[in-house]
Amino acid sequence: MHILITGAAGMIGRKLVERLARTGKLNGKTIDKLTLADIVPPEPPKGLSGDIESRTIDLPAPGAAEALLIARPNVIFHLAGVVSGEAETDLEKGYRVNLDGSRTLLDAIRNAGDGYCPKFIFTSSIAVFGAPLPDPVPDDFHLTPLTSYGTQKVMIEALLADYSRRGFVDGVGIRLPGITVRPGKPNKAASGFFSAIIREPLAGLEAIQPVPDDVQNTHASPRSAAGFLIHAAGLTRAQLGPRINLTMPGVCCSVGEQVAALRRVAGERVAARIRHVPDPFIMRIVEGWPRSFTSDRARALGFKAENTFDEIVKIHIDEDLGGRFVA
Amino acid sequence: MHILITGAAGMIGRKLVERLARTGKLNGKTIDKLTLADIVPPEPPKGLSGDIESRTIDLPAPGAAEALLIARPNVIFHLAGVVSGEAETDLEKGYRVNLDGSRTLLDAIRNAGDGYCPKFIFTSSIAVFGAPLPDPVPDDFHLTPLTSYGTQKVMIEALLADYSRRGFVDGVGIRLPGITVRPGKPNKAASGFFSAIIREPLAGLEAIQPVPDDVQNTHASPRSAAGFLIHAAGLTRAQLGPRINLTMPGVCCSVGEQVAALRRVAGERVAARIRHVPDPFIMRIVEGWPRSFTSDRARALGFKAENTFDEIVKIHIDEDLGGRFVA
Repeated sequence: MHILITGAAGMIGRKLVERLARTGKLNGKTIDKLTLADIVPPEPPKGLSGDIESRTIDLPAPGAAEALLIARPNVIFHLAGVVSGEAETDLEKGYRVNLDGSRTLLDAIRNAGDGYCPKFIFTSSIAVFGAPLPDPVPDDFHLTPLTSYGTQKVMIEALLADYSRRGFVDGVGIRLPGITVRPGKPNKAASGFFSAIIREPLAGLEAIQPVPDDVQNTHASPRSAAGFLIHAAGLTRAQLGPRINLTMPGVCCSVGEQVAALRRVAGERVAARIRHVPDPFIMRIVEGWPRSFTSDRARALGFKAENTFDEIVKIHIDEDLGGRFVA
Repeated sequence: MHILITGAAGMIGRKLVERLARTGKLNGKTIDKLTLADIVPPEPPKGLSGDIESRTIDLPAPGAAEALLIARPNVIFHLAGVVSGEAETDLEKGYRVNLDGSRTLLDAIRNAGDGYCPKFIFTSSIAVFGAPLPDPVPDDFHLTPLTSYGTQKVMIEALLADYSRRGFVDGVGIRLPGITVRPGKPNKAASGFFSAIIREPLAGLEAIQPVPDDVQNTHASPRSAAGFLIHAAGLTRAQLGPRINLTMPGVCCSVGEQVAALRRVAGERVAARIRHVPDPFIMRIVEGWPRSFTSDRARALGFKAENTFDEIVKIHIDEDLGGRFVA
């Protein structure tokens, strides 16, 4: 089993690589080879006995996609992409990487010409949806993104479905909800506070809550994100049918419920490090986002997320903080 | 008022050009210039006093889109495209023309760099929908095309919405239902019989009905198609909002009702020229198509189609047969 991961140096990429290295298997088969590709050098995981190759590549550049496919990986996790904020501020880059990069990779597969048809797992996003939205959003609701990032995801979802229908790839698109708690430094994404209000207090730092307590969002842990990817790789064409793009499940809760979960898991002193400073700019952005999803198909196909936000807090402490936090 | 029409030599393009030439105006303004572009030489209309330019171009070829925009047309009707059947049999050509050609045109507008922001009317198709579908299909149903043609339409609808949101174009996508009665020779499209069973008997010829009487479809006349385009050109951004892609209205009726309408309009002898020869291949394709649509938004925005299939038959006799048929 040869696995290719694009965007392997990103947050979800690293979680996936660690998980694959730990289990050493995918779909019950031993991983002989792991190819990690990213625009920055991906770090090879410890503990995997198979062949590991790290490649620093710019996917839409001529020949880059073809080079990744020479050894014909059996499973491709396509995570590479420019994030939402950057795709909005740098239009050319967003379309080049998120649309052309993905299309180039799919076309390189199509053009292999030797019956090559890998499993292809594409990370899409709930950014494919745009307000006004029903709450919860059903699986058959139309995609009306309000960002260029979401638009690029819609376009590749459609292309992936067509290429799967035509038998060039065995594709599945998974729309990730908010991934919380994101480890690392705070970033400037409007959604950053959903993670920061948990991560920063656990590190002994103050965090700003820019929206009211009743703002709702759907969350899954980085561990669940890696789990979605692995589960998607095991689904058959017969299970998927022609509608291969799936909205992943998650925990829908309010910001107030997030804080209450933090209080239950880590105590009052930790929760008291959150300061409420309303930010109308962030509030306005968040209002355009979907709150919750039925995710009926994904659940029926066996995708699983956490059941409570308490679990999400505990997973962060366990996976990213080595079990300890600043009480 | 300068108008550019791509795909001007096609059936709907010609109907639109004739109509614009007849009225000499669009949105209440005199048409000073009409640029007709197509891969085959478009025929200039009679009767328009303004400047008419015909251009034979391959839209995705380097520089072609830019050349069309030098005189900065105020309104662009983008009808150019490879049809459904050809996009399915020639994948490269379909993506090159329908996806890359349209994107090239939109990018050329974006890159004009002088505040240029034309009205852009894109002809999409109900091929963006794919079975299983509710009947009628509501406006907010997701797009799951089952053809490469439908996929390309989905991708450009998304791009057009994003570019409109960002202020590069003032876009509107109109999803055409079955356009009936198509004038001219029978073609090999699976949908061809919907027109052929009306057109051929009126010309004194036998026609084959390959599906049972109860097969339903939604139809609008070529006159309505031109009307949709002209109406779309008059809609404001405020009226459209961010959801600029609209499912056009039409007459939903069964094949049996089509034949009954032909009998009412043209008599029993004409209707008797239809022979029922079941074709399981065509039947299977037609089963994947949507039957009817609510078209709530389009109707609320003032788009109008025929109310009965009798009208559609009469329009064909009137517009394409000079008022006469073989009784």
